[in-house]
Amino acid sequence: MDRLYWFGWQWLLPGAAKRLWTLADRFGSLRAAWLAPAEELVNRGGFNPKTVYELVQRRSAFDPQAALDGLAGQGIDYIFFDDPAYPGALRQIFDPPPGLFVRGRLPAATRPALAVVGSRRPTPYGLAVAERLAKEAAAAGVVVVSGLARGIDSAAHRGALSAGGHTVAVLGCGVDVVYPRENRRLMEEIAAGGAVVSEFPPGSPPEAWHFPVRNRIISGLSRATLVVEAAEKSGALITADMALEQGRDVLAVPGGIASPLSRGPNRLIKQGARLVEGVADILEELGVTALFKLPSGVESSPPRLTGDESAVYRRLSYEPATVDKLVEESALPAQQVLAALMFLEVKRLVRQLPGGCYVLRESGPGF
Amino acid sequence: MDRLYWFGWQWLLPGAAKRLWTLADRFGSLRAAWLAPAEELVNRGGFNPKTVYELVQRRSAFDPQAALDGLAGQGIDYIFFDDPAYPGALRQIFDPPPGLFVRGRLPAATRPALAVVGSRRPTPYGLAVAERLAKEAAAAGVVVVSGLARGIDSAAHRGALSAGGHTVAVLGCGVDVVYPRENRRLMEEIAAGGAVVSEFPPGSPPEAWHFPVRNRIISGLSRATLVVEAAEKSGALITADMALEQGRDVLAVPGGIASPLSRGPNRLIKQGARLVEGVADILEELGVTALFKLPSGVESSPPRLTGDESAVYRRLSYEPATVDKLVEESALPAQQVLAALMFLEVKRLVRQLPGGCYVLRESGPGF
Repeated sequence: MDRLYWFGWQWLLPGAAKRLWTLADRFGSLRAAWLAPAEELVNRGGFNPKTVYELVQRRSAFDPQAALDGLAGQGIDYIFFDDPAYPGALRQIFDPPPGLFVRGRLPAATRPALAVVGSRRPTPYGLAVAERLAKEAAAAGVVVVSGLARGIDSAAHRGALSAGGHTVAVLGCGVDVVYPRENRRLMEEIAAGGAVVSEFPPGSPPEAWHFPVRNRIISGLSRATLVVEAAEKSGALITADMALEQGRDVLAVPGGIASPLSRGPNRLIKQGARLVEGVADILEELGVTALFKLPSGVESSPPRLTGDESAVYRRLSYEPATVDKLVEESALPAQQVLAALMFLEVKRLVRQLPGGCYVLRESGPGF
Repeated sequence: MDRLYWFGWQWLLPGAAKRLWTLADRFGSLRAAWLAPAEELVNRGGFNPKTVYELVQRRSAFDPQAALDGLAGQGIDYIFFDDPAYPGALRQIFDPPPGLFVRGRLPAATRPALAVVGSRRPTPYGLAVAERLAKEAAAAGVVVVSGLARGIDSAAHRGALSAGGHTVAVLGCGVDVVYPRENRRLMEEIAAGGAVVSEFPPGSPPEAWHFPVRNRIISGLSRATLVVEAAEKSGALITADMALEQGRDVLAVPGGIASPLSRGPNRLIKQGARLVEGVADILEELGVTALFKLPSGVESSPPRLTGDESAVYRRLSYEPATVDKLVEESALPAQQVLAALMFLEVKRLVRQLPGGCYVLRESGPGF
């Protein structure tokens, strides 16, 4: 069966989808390529003569059927390109992986998917925004796709899981390899409630070059890509570029122009990406406002604030602030500041910490 | 002379430009209206019978020539609508003031002007951004127009003055009235180095209704209006609306979606306002790139990269990198890496250092 040879080639040449499609083209089938001698791989397949002998050795030592059978025991599915379970959106990109290694279950093809990507070292602002938007989008039925990296990726997965939503983690290593190590538990949770996916065979280490290759799958699985915080020249911007090349939409969360991590999103917005202020923008872009009911508490427009509330709210951040500090900075009487804080708590914008300090709520509605 | 009657009517009915243009239309001239009895002002002029007698009393007690003569002694000019010194951009709006009271000197009509507006109670971020952008725009020859209010307005004026640039303060009171009080010194500096302007006669107090009326002059004097920080439903957004009605451009500085004061600018950007990250965006919007030299580091849109170029470019930073390192990290053949580097050099994205290392160009375009 041809499928087995595709599987074999993907195992031998991981992350080289474009090359495999070319190879199938040149040899008529990957079965023919698999059976071809080294000389023909060079002459017809365009392989480097210096590396082809090592490849041929690996090929003869590799038993695709045994490897495929072995996956089942590891709880890993291999979803072939022409399998009905293969994600339709991914099938449409220029260089789709011939197959996907999957732990967990892929979402139904009909569900809208959003990639949420960003910096590995975000600010508290970026983290809070990524988690909250992913949570609200997931609650509205959107599949949240990301890369399980530190920072924004992890926050996006966590947000989707906290809403009981479906989330897909696309790895730059094997689906049995935990990277980064600290995400072991998050990865298990995703495999249990969503899917962990890779085009790299089990056991593949997280090599640096895998990640840009992997990014095309993140955007390719998704109807749109949301960039939360990203430095210039970052992986998240590569993903955004790929989304555009794949004809998908790009969305971005703006930030202060003095923040290097908002330079990426701000520049994307200048180039035409949709500015996202809240989940309503995401749902509108995905065209799902009519299909899914918004969870209660999620509003399109933020709650109205009185003058005092607004004066106090502006001075709050994710750094705990004392009432005294807020009184001093707002130049309002303490009584008014306390009243405003109380109403801001009721509006779920502000949280009181033990000790009487106040911070912005990380997952409160209405930015 | 007709001019004297225009002056008289503007003094009697300050901030009612639209009404004066209508009056001139209905009576053929404002001289005729000035000489008309109360009944005719009601029947033909559409004045309220209850208030017309008080108006007529004030009219007969007022000597326009004496008032005009008195202005000179106060160092105040009255620039009439058909005066060559009357700002051409303002003349084009729907309801221009018949004349402007001016302390200082108006800029040459050929100089591009930018309105900079925003919150009276900005965050430190907004203040810093307003002052810096105004300074850099002024240094490039742009006239900075604002309203001398606390917060963003004051920061914009200060920024322009600190660059030795021209700045225009448009008041909602007489040009001899200091409001807010703390801006006395700033107002004097503006009158000395730029212009303090109002359509309200000297002595007019800063009544609340004056400010939205005044805002149309801020936008009307300017080729574009920049909103730095603004709450929803704020004066700055009214000015932005007026700019749009006047066919002028609106620009906005983005901010975090958790900041209530960035809600105004972010929403404007969603509606099509240009996102401003730096002075280059302002100069480009004003079309002054050709007239004034841009500071280095100002970029245009990024050039397209091939796959190899992009793979290599992504791995470059401001730290010198060897070709070997780039080959290893990109997993591309050395020949392809070298070719990509050559093209990246041609595209002025990358610089070769002595010793064969490569770094990003500091002022190179693109991400």
